[in-house]
Amino acid sequence: MTSTTAPRVPQEERTRAMRARLMEATVELLVEKGFSGTSTTLVSQRAGVSRGAQLHHFPTKNDLVVAAVEHIADTRGAELTAALADAPTGPGRTRAVLELLAEHFTAPIFAAALELWVAARTEPQLHEAVELLEEKVGRQTHFLTATALGVDGNERGPRELVQATLDLLRGLGLANTVTDDARRRARVLDAWAATVDAQLGR
Amino acid sequence: MTSTTAPRVPQEERTRAMRARLMEATVELLVEKGFSGTSTTLVSQRAGVSRGAQLHHFPTKNDLVVAAVEHIADTRGAELTAALADAPTGPGRTRAVLELLAEHFTAPIFAAALELWVAARTEPQLHEAVELLEEKVGRQTHFLTATALGVDGNERGPRELVQATLDLLRGLGLANTVTDDARRRARVLDAWAATVDAQLGR
Repeated sequence: MTSTTAPRVPQEERTRAMRARLMEATVELLVEKGFSGTSTTLVSQRAGVSRGAQLHHFPTKNDLVVAAVEHIADTRGAELTAALADAPTGPGRTRAVLELLAEHFTAPIFAAALELWVAARTEPQLHEAVELLEEKVGRQTHFLTATALGVDGNERGPRELVQATLDLLRGLGLANTVTDDARRRARVLDAWAATVDAQLGR
Repeated sequence: MTSTTAPRVPQEERTRAMRARLMEATVELLVEKGFSGTSTTLVSQRAGVSRGAQLHHFPTKNDLVVAAVEHIADTRGAELTAALADAPTGPGRTRAVLELLAEHFTAPIFAAALELWVAARTEPQLHEAVELLEEKVGRQTHFLTATALGVDGNERGPRELVQATLDLLRGLGLANTVTDDARRRARVLDAWAATVDAQLGR
């Protein structure tokens, strides 16, 4: 470390913090106002970042929303990984793992991602970025679910069971956006945990 | 029948046909352009119906989109009911039933309904109507799935199995909006058919 490089650290820190604020504000706005109600102007206002600085880091709304959902998904994915690592072992484990996953699929980040998915359906410019993001997030979630359930997610049989679990959770997450679906979801997950354990011979 | 009532029939027919055209055009536009890209002006243009006539039948965009999705869901639901009634009996029945349901959950009406669900999340004026529509459609789909699988959908056990099946299909439908997911979906449904049959002791 020399005196000429030392001053750059605070600047890098400030830049990192500003980018994080922009991305947090973007996800909040996607959750509150949806994709069409989210504008770069609203984001810079909420994040307390100048329009110029925002445009420097994220030239378009699409750049911003994709980076934001990826960033928050990474953060929440890391939290989920930690929570799954702490899930109880023994007979209640599968149900506990499903509960943690269901919390993930009903959290604000799911609503923000849903806004992106649906917007990408009819916005060609957004489509490719969302497809790549979904592939990445989907692979990660598949891997950590397989790990949490103690199976090889690439092996035929367990692979489809993990995929069906995640498709089910996606469907439950979607149902929960219109009505508070917690009681029904709990019963479905009770039954699903029993199904998973039976399939895995537990 | 008298000569004074006879001329009214063609007018009623014309009104019914005009309403049907408006609703078909609305669902097409929801699929192509999404909720935010669908305007009453575009709908009246595509349906070939005057603005005045359209506003007479559907005073607001929300009235129009909810009526349209309900109408098309009813029509497609009737088609699904007929198809399920013709599903083969015997060992392949569960898989055949799942295939027909999956076709329903990946059809354009699913994309149109998805646009409404997601818009309703952030549009309070749309929320109640979509919640009521979802309850109605959800009840119907639950009933016809239970019937097709030959179970009592109100009995604990089969009820959760039917619900999980529909949540899974909703998740598969959502996954399919971003990428063409047909091969993966087929494998998941193969596995799920075996699980359903095992759960039902078949």
